[in-house]
Amino acid sequence: MNIDLLKNEKIDQLYSNNVKIIQSTEVFSFSLDAVLLADFTKVSSKRIKKIVDLCAGNGAVGLFLSQKTAAQITEIEIQPRLADMANRSIKLNGLENQFNVINDDLSKSLDYIKKDSVDVITCNPPYFLNYDTSKKNDNEYMAIARHEIKTNLDKIMMISSSMLKTNGKMYVVFRPDRLSDLLINMRKYHLEPKQIKFVYPQQGKNANMVLVEAIKDGKMNGLKILPEIVVYDNGSYTDYVNGLIYGE
Amino acid sequence: MNIDLLKNEKIDQLYSNNVKIIQSTEVFSFSLDAVLLADFTKVSSKRIKKIVDLCAGNGAVGLFLSQKTAAQITEIEIQPRLADMANRSIKLNGLENQFNVINDDLSKSLDYIKKDSVDVITCNPPYFLNYDTSKKNDNEYMAIARHEIKTNLDKIMMISSSMLKTNGKMYVVFRPDRLSDLLINMRKYHLEPKQIKFVYPQQGKNANMVLVEAIKDGKMNGLKILPEIVVYDNGSYTDYVNGLIYGE
Repeated sequence: MNIDLLKNEKIDQLYSNNVKIIQSTEVFSFSLDAVLLADFTKVSSKRIKKIVDLCAGNGAVGLFLSQKTAAQITEIEIQPRLADMANRSIKLNGLENQFNVINDDLSKSLDYIKKDSVDVITCNPPYFLNYDTSKKNDNEYMAIARHEIKTNLDKIMMISSSMLKTNGKMYVVFRPDRLSDLLINMRKYHLEPKQIKFVYPQQGKNANMVLVEAIKDGKMNGLKILPEIVVYDNGSYTDYVNGLIYGE
Repeated sequence: MNIDLLKNEKIDQLYSNNVKIIQSTEVFSFSLDAVLLADFTKVSSKRIKKIVDLCAGNGAVGLFLSQKTAAQITEIEIQPRLADMANRSIKLNGLENQFNVINDDLSKSLDYIKKDSVDVITCNPPYFLNYDTSKKNDNEYMAIARHEIKTNLDKIMMISSSMLKTNGKMYVVFRPDRLSDLLINMRKYHLEPKQIKFVYPQQGKNANMVLVEAIKDGKMNGLKILPEIVVYDNGSYTDYVNGLIYGE
């Protein structure tokens, strides 16, 4: 398969699976967030037919998920440059039949996807509030991926709740410093948080990532705080993270 | 000091401090929740003059706190039997000058305490929703302490927000399965969660307690998920918990 790479692009592959992903230091690279989100997301049930990845970036989360499901995966990404990378990575892996990339604002999702039709949504949203005063990344690609410039938690939860079936699940990776915002916006749109997993960079440090599973129209109790993930131990990846990246 | 003990009462003392607390298996016993909440609560600053403990039960949280502050401590407890135990424990420890027990519904707190006057509030609220169908403890003392029969998170946060000064702090111990309810009710009354610590019974299990520090009128971001507490390791208390109970 011949896929053209643009300037500053390279192909990355996790040793733990077979997926190749076009990365670019200039634009946006998937990182541990995407690996952990894909690992946290449950998609192996055969009843899961339709998955949507919002804020898809270069498509990494969906591509990782494709290794554990035969469901149709739709990647929605507002930035043409990133949506193009996702499309080329899909071709590189010969997964055109399983994937569909929508290059549009996620608030337009219902123009493409039927209401109440989706089994699973994943999202790695912009983490930072779009304060006028906040120091944004000079690189516009990065700024849009990281700050609430083009979208925000409220919009993401509103559209996700519309797309999901009753009892459909949403999986999000986020920063703990806005955990309250995340849980409040989820409940506002009847996406009830049911499982949370915190990610600590190392023992004795504060968590720096949080993974949340919410269920559409789920009951408002029964939230489980799962055993934590620790990323580094003495400067090396812990066995768990090592397994995700390099295989077991 | 002669203090009368009623039937089925005994005096417990944590070896890690000097406080004696009247306990009763029949009514209500302080447990690890109270020890962890008192440990989590920051009261050593000399600027802290006024502390209120809501849902005070037999007064354990306030009594533990008295070991690290000279501030005035008010215990508010709706159940006369428990308020009486708290009063006798206070006498037993010779702490009448530092303490004040109010035996009333916490929703009446402003009849006793000035608005915007409190530096720190602690609360170990009833954990369970008061569903008509929920299986309550046959013992009414326990049922009221554990279920939202006489109060609920909404009332607790409303009254706490009224009593606290701007930038005053609220410390709560709760069950993770209602974490969203807790964070949502806190924000509703401008008590912004700033630090959270999860308590896991042992490595690899789900958390079974959560400690939350909120700041009145705090900014809506910057929440920190602190390193976790693990209670047991191989059937024995971990060093950390051992230190809290038996001293270091």
